Amino acid sequence: MTTTMISQATVEAENESRLTALRRDYESLGERLSRRGIAIDEIKRKVTAYGVAVPSWGVGTGGTRFARFPGKGEPRNIFDKLEDCAVIQQLTRATPTVSLHIPWDKVSDISELKEKGTSLGLGFDAMNSNTFSDAPGQEHSYKFGSLSHADAATRAQAVEHNLECIEIGRQLGSKALTVWVGDGSNFPGQSNFTRAFERYLDAMKSVYAALPDDWRVYTEHKMFEPAFYSTVVQDWGSNYLIAQELGPKAFCLVDLGHHAPNVNIEMIVARLIQFGKLGGFHFNDSKYGDDDLDTGSIDPYRLFLVFNELVDAETRKAKGFEPAHMLDQSHNVTDPIESLMTSATEVCRAYAQALIVDRQALAGYQDDNDALMASETLKVAFRTDVEPILAMARLESGGAIAPVAAYRKSGYRAKVAAERPAVAGGGGGIV
Amino acid sequence: MTTTMISQATVEAENESRLTALRRDYESLGERLSRRGIAIDEIKRKVTAYGVAVPSWGVGTGGTRFARFPGKGEPRNIFDKLEDCAVIQQLTRATPTVSLHIPWDKVSDISELKEKGTSLGLGFDAMNSNTFSDAPGQEHSYKFGSLSHADAATRAQAVEHNLECIEIGRQLGSKALTVWVGDGSNFPGQSNFTRAFERYLDAMKSVYAALPDDWRVYTEHKMFEPAFYSTVVQDWGSNYLIAQELGPKAFCLVDLGHHAPNVNIEMIVARLIQFGKLGGFHFNDSKYGDDDLDTGSIDPYRLFLVFNELVDAETRKAKGFEPAHMLDQSHNVTDPIESLMTSATEVCRAYAQALIVDRQALAGYQDDNDALMASETLKVAFRTDVEPILAMARLESGGAIAPVAAYRKSGYRAKVAAERPAVAGGGGGIV
Amino acid sequence: MTTTMISQATVEAENESRLTALRRDYESLGERLSRRGIAIDEIKRKVTAYGVAVPSWGVGTGGTRFARFPGKGEPRNIFDKLEDCAVIQQLTRATPTVSLHIPWDKVSDISELKEKGTSLGLGFDAMNSNTFSDAPGQEHSYKFGSLSHADAATRAQAVEHNLECIEIGRQLGSKALTVWVGDGSNFPGQSNFTRAFERYLDAMKSVYAALPDDWRVYTEHKMFEPAFYSTVVQDWGSNYLIAQELGPKAFCLVDLGHHAPNVNIEMIVARLIQFGKLGGFHFNDSKYGDDDLDTGSIDPYRLFLVFNELVDAETRKAKGFEPAHMLDQSHNVTDPIESLMTSATEVCRAYAQALIVDRQALAGYQDDNDALMASETLKVAFRTDVEPILAMARLESGGAIAPVAAYRKSGYRAKVAAERPAVAGGGGGIV
Amino acid sequence: MTTTMISQATVEAENESRLTALRRDYESLGERLSRRGIAIDEIKRKVTAYGVAVPSWGVGTGGTRFARFPGKGEPRNIFDKLEDCAVIQQLTRATPTVSLHIPWDKVSDISELKEKGTSLGLGFDAMNSNTFSDAPGQEHSYKFGSLSHADAATRAQAVEHNLECIEIGRQLGSKALTVWVGDGSNFPGQSNFTRAFERYLDAMKSVYAALPDDWRVYTEHKMFEPAFYSTVVQDWGSNYLIAQELGPKAFCLVDLGHHAPNVNIEMIVARLIQFGKLGGFHFNDSKYGDDDLDTGSIDPYRLFLVFNELVDAETRKAKGFEPAHMLDQSHNVTDPIESLMTSATEVCRAYAQALIVDRQALAGYQDDNDALMASETLKVAFRTDVEPILAMARLESGGAIAPVAAYRKSGYRAKVAAERPAVAGGGGGIV
Repeated sequence: MTTTMISQATVEAENESRLTALRRDYESLGERLSRRGIAIDEIKRKVTAYGVAVPSWGVGTGGTRFARFPGKGEPRNIFDKLEDCAVIQQLTRATPTVSLHIPWDKVSDISELKEKGTSLGLGFDAMNSNTFSDAPGQEHSYKFGSLSHADAATRAQAVEHNLECIEIGRQLGSKALTVWVGDGSNFPGQSNFTRAFERYLDAMKSVYAALPDDWRVYTEHKMFEPAFYSTVVQDWGSNYLIAQELGPKAFCLVDLGHHAPNVNIEMIVARLIQFGKLGGFHFNDSKYGDDDLDTGSIDPYRLFLVFNELVDAETRKAKGFEPAHMLDQSHNVTDPIESLMTSATEVCRAYAQALIVDRQALAGYQDDNDALMASETLKVAFRTDVEPILAMARLESGGAIAPVAAYRKSGYRAKVAAERPAVAGGGGGIV
Repeated sequence: MTTTMISQATVEAENESRLTALRRDYESLGERLSRRGIAIDEIKRKVTAYGVAVPSWGVGTGGTRFARFPGKGEPRNIFDKLEDCAVIQQLTRATPTVSLHIPWDKVSDISELKEKGTSLGLGFDAMNSNTFSDAPGQEHSYKFGSLSHADAATRAQAVEHNLECIEIGRQLGSKALTVWVGDGSNFPGQSNFTRAFERYLDAMKSVYAALPDDWRVYTEHKMFEPAFYSTVVQDWGSNYLIAQELGPKAFCLVDLGHHAPNVNIEMIVARLIQFGKLGGFHFNDSKYGDDDLDTGSIDPYRLFLVFNELVDAETRKAKGFEPAHMLDQSHNVTDPIESLMTSATEVCRAYAQALIVDRQALAGYQDDNDALMASETLKVAFRTDVEPILAMARLESGGAIAPVAAYRKSGYRAKVAAERPAVAGGGGGIV
Repeated sequence: MTTTMISQATVEAENESRLTALRRDYESLGERLSRRGIAIDEIKRKVTAYGVAVPSWGVGTGGTRFARFPGKGEPRNIFDKLEDCAVIQQLTRATPTVSLHIPWDKVSDISELKEKGTSLGLGFDAMNSNTFSDAPGQEHSYKFGSLSHADAATRAQAVEHNLECIEIGRQLGSKALTVWVGDGSNFPGQSNFTRAFERYLDAMKSVYAALPDDWRVYTEHKMFEPAFYSTVVQDWGSNYLIAQELGPKAFCLVDLGHHAPNVNIEMIVARLIQFGKLGGFHFNDSKYGDDDLDTGSIDPYRLFLVFNELVDAETRKAKGFEPAHMLDQSHNVTDPIESLMTSATEVCRAYAQALIVDRQALAGYQDDNDALMASETLKVAFRTDVEPILAMARLESGGAIAPVAAYRKSGYRAKVAAERPAVAGGGGGIV
Repeated sequence: MTTTMISQATVEAENESRLTALRRDYESLGERLSRRGIAIDEIKRKVTAYGVAVPSWGVGTGGTRFARFPGKGEPRNIFDKLEDCAVIQQLTRATPTVSLHIPWDKVSDISELKEKGTSLGLGFDAMNSNTFSDAPGQEHSYKFGSLSHADAATRAQAVEHNLECIEIGRQLGSKALTVWVGDGSNFPGQSNFTRAFERYLDAMKSVYAALPDDWRVYTEHKMFEPAFYSTVVQDWGSNYLIAQELGPKAFCLVDLGHHAPNVNIEMIVARLIQFGKLGGFHFNDSKYGDDDLDTGSIDPYRLFLVFNELVDAETRKAKGFEPAHMLDQSHNVTDPIESLMTSATEVCRAYAQALIVDRQALAGYQDDNDALMASETLKVAFRTDVEPILAMARLESGGAIAPVAAYRKSGYRAKVAAERPAVAGGGGGIV
């Protein structure tokens, strides 16, 4: 039986106060959708079945190179983090799995960790390796790269670390490895692009070779940061080349904040689907760079357009289409639990909105070059306030109609703040 | 015997006044280079052998959607354009070929055109098709696309046009076709990315099938304009997929102004070389978008870094490395002949600077992670004022030490202004 | 009595088919809003009173420098344009005024034009001058600038043109002049930034001096295009300096597409309001540059955030706050009438959504640094589908519940296509 | 008498090996310049008189939010830092002053610090306050802002801190305060732009009031980071408003990496000069955001264009023109001393290149709209390899012909690495 971090009675009491209004709104939305030929319960069913993974590191307060300002009750370790993740899942019922980061989440007893997850009703999503910072006692530094480092021993160490991540994940029931490296350069000339990419590919081939048969590896591209002149896996083009070179278990991960300004991300998603290499997502939002802001907080229409591609692929049963959905955000000014609950909801919202797009009409407008009506077809779906569907899906799965309100009522943050020691803030990486 | 548009006597007189200083500067540069272990004559030899194609459309004054302000003596047709191109080649000795645009340069008698080229000492570079605007009397409009159009007949017409370009080029001695389409969309939803790309690939396969054995096809990507939400070939990732799908005669063309803001273009060049798909360049410069400014006028170091990749590939004899070099600019406020001469010189300059990079030292710094000295190694080469090499190469090939000065002295513009009727300016595409 | 371009009977018949559903939706939305303490009729009242000006040039098909693809029934002159604008106003009841462009809309008999407007129920909004292209027979060319031109006679001619615009506007009942210039440079060094700006300011002072007492002048900034290295009025900082130098009748116009990538436009709007210099807007949308796409088609949340600032200023009765609202778009692939109707509706939508923001709660969250709830407060308003309010406002004012559907039913486009001669497409400004 | 950190004998020995070549190169450059009417000694004199301040924090290895990888011999405190700065000044003779950061450089005995500076031949440049991170024991957190914080007590604390910086600076002989805040927001709605800016202005007025008569205050704008949706002082427009509101001792500081993509920075510099509000610079280079890369390493022509504006203002004796020059970089992969020496040299280089621009010819081309020759006039100056001038200036002032080579020969890094304890690397701000 699943341990709940918040008393279900608290959740139910909170829900009770919102139930009448929700039923009214669900009914009236159902009527409006039915006029468009859409069965609201069918949409709700799909939303209920949907899940997005929570990153273990996301439940701690993030920071910038200038400073980090911790909040109250910061999780001390992966066990605390899992409890925070369990709160998110309990209230949203949309985040059934957690994605770990090694060595941050390394434990001495993996089976204890696995049991903790099981007891909280949480599964383990993709494993994340870390070769972008030096762990204490590490023999070779990643200052000048890891999988693409000029020195073979450093590359071997980075490969070894990824193999360890696979092994931990295997024991936890994970089925995927996500590899993001900070490798790159800060000066023209510092790195030979071609040789560095060759070394990266060679190293990744060793990682790929160790992948269990039913696993996938996701490589992640990023335009800049922490390297500021060039990055080894700088965009989806390089990422695609990697997936192609590695083989059928290798796929590209799309982080919404890792692109050049103005780039049409939904189109990249479409291309990767078309060529069978979309691995999945790190959802977040951004205005300037890899801002890691809350999903849908800056440009919700863009998020919808990404999901429009996903539902399109789902609808036409695109070959090999099975993307992993994960959140990846840095919560610098909010309670991370609140942000992750809200972001999980935003992802569900975009999915629900994409589900109610009239795809038959859309295809007709596209064939007729009726750009205005094609646009309106998407806009009508996006404008639809699907919150009643999301709320009803949560409610019927045992979650909260209003997750943030229920969370605040529960007093969870105050409780863990009393148990977990306060953390001092301080400068970030700059000094 | 080659017809010269400007009297060689004029050129020689102009050169005469600069000869002493040039010799002095060449000698003193030679001494400085020799201290670095570089033989100046060897660099000069390579620069002399180098050539970049001039676009026929470049010798006319360009414009924007807001207006076009023609200059004096605008060329009336491809024969006039060839004469202008001959001036550029005569003075710079760096532009032995011309790249045509069909239907703009279509003629009734192709052999006459070929002879004109021969008489002027000009060869014919890659052919450019045009399916981004409607020619008078054209059956199907390209308003909503060409090679990716939803309508099969429109696609067939666009394919047919490309076949015609190949045929004309075949007769002229060209060996390549460059395909840039304006296809894309202005609204989310207007176009189904996947279906549009499938249609484009299908159509391009028909074009590819008609390619003579010794030809190459260059596809060109562009982020935006004339389509402002999505573009069918939006970036090098999509461009690479096209080249891969088409086959061994298909390559990617890189226009320096067709990328997202901040993108590391030299890295894209390196990736395309590494995977055997770099077709060539449309050189120009830009600050904001596809500004089509004069090559090297905005960010000369970026141009150098691109050539650094080219010379690196040349040095290590990268497999299949044989890129085409073309200028592609819009001259809105200068005499196009002056801009093209200056731009050809800038390309030569970047090439010469890249040639004097101490590659052995650079590789050593890269292996040692000595970022600062690696950067300095490039900077030292870039800082070297190689103008004496370029000027001496021109002089010894029969060109002008100072092409713009010689051109102005020649009175060529006034002469053609007297022959060619004045052209009225006016609005661009907006109204 | 107002002449209607489309039979009201057609409009009413179309409305009739949608009336029951609209009433149902209006009622149910009213209930949901009422739960939040908002009176739906009050919002409707404000939306009804709202209006946005239509640009006369917007009813013609636009183009790019590469091509223009005209549609059917292109308006031949300002009288045709006014009729098209009347259709937009008849169906949307949100566009009571038209903004003219001189010399494009110049007529021999101004009083005839004024009467035409009156008969169609249209007023005349801000006048727009054009010194970015050369009119036939113009003495001095604007190739190298207009109000900032190095040559005094050219500047004087540009000033004179603006005075003429004021005079025409005075006769038409306009109360404002909008000045956008294409002045700038394509090469570092081409222009001395300081001297060019001094000349611009001097010239504008002459224009300002001629402004009637009850007029305003709006200067418009733009980052690039048609100049591609520098622009004389490149951003809101320079625009603010201009307004400050000119005096109390001078204000800054914000075109949503004229900014650098990633710029926070709503913040610029807030700053200009705070310092009493927000003149108004050219609404449109963009992904890359001055794309002039349909308002709200790319990033509807950004449009909402702009209106959030406007309603905030309205609510706190910000001093001197009286912005002009205009659309400014280029319709390259749609029927311009349809795009303008849809865009007017989008502007109304953003206004309505901003009106239902719970500003008291928002201020509280801001004071408490409750970033998540502050964000949610905006998102809740934005997520609300206010279409029933907009439709009801249109209906009750005599417009169409579904303007595009009513327009298509009316056969207006076919009718004018029969009357107005077909226009040939062709290249844009590049050749 | 000044204490030297490196034995002058070492420096002289290193110089000796390069002297002949330098004299040769200086002479030959002098000849080339003299042909253009430029006296090389006059340029050398100006370069010799030029100085740029070094930031105290710059001599430590920087990092990102992902990680920091310290080097050997990291300075432990401001006394160590001053010694490192003295090395830079000893070898380059271009960095006579140091800019401090409080509280990072806070000491118990200010006079001791001042004496240390004097003994090393270093003066104290602008003081930098820090209200973007929390110092240990600080009463109010800056998590949600400092000078613009919603809470009055937090603002007062931030003001108080700035007053303390002024007081420390006063005792050290500094004459300026630089204020950069990280205040902003991560979510639309989190902050009310107008009220936040009002609070900021109010707080800054209190700081301004405490400024000694002969001091200046520099406010610094930045587009994003650490706030990722909005920043209180986001661009030069807001920065100008601040300087204007505060008074005649308030000026705008331009950091080259704090702008939106594609922005024309040299134009902003020109505008601030024209309106008497250019305070000075934080020099560095960037490709993507506030990358804080080494000055001139990414786009040296842009740096030159900035100096072109400065020399233009100097030449025309622009009113109130007296900008402060400082470096501000983050050295993540290089020895900070080497980077700062190289960057100081790059700044001198840009200055020297700008000095040899033929300004009379340039003005003529500008008046004649001869864009091509205007561009070439700048390019000719930029292409000139002025290294012999810089090296001769250093040599004659007692510095090193080749600072990095001399530094490496000196063994300084190894020496301090033996004295200063090793610092562990680790994560940055994210976890």
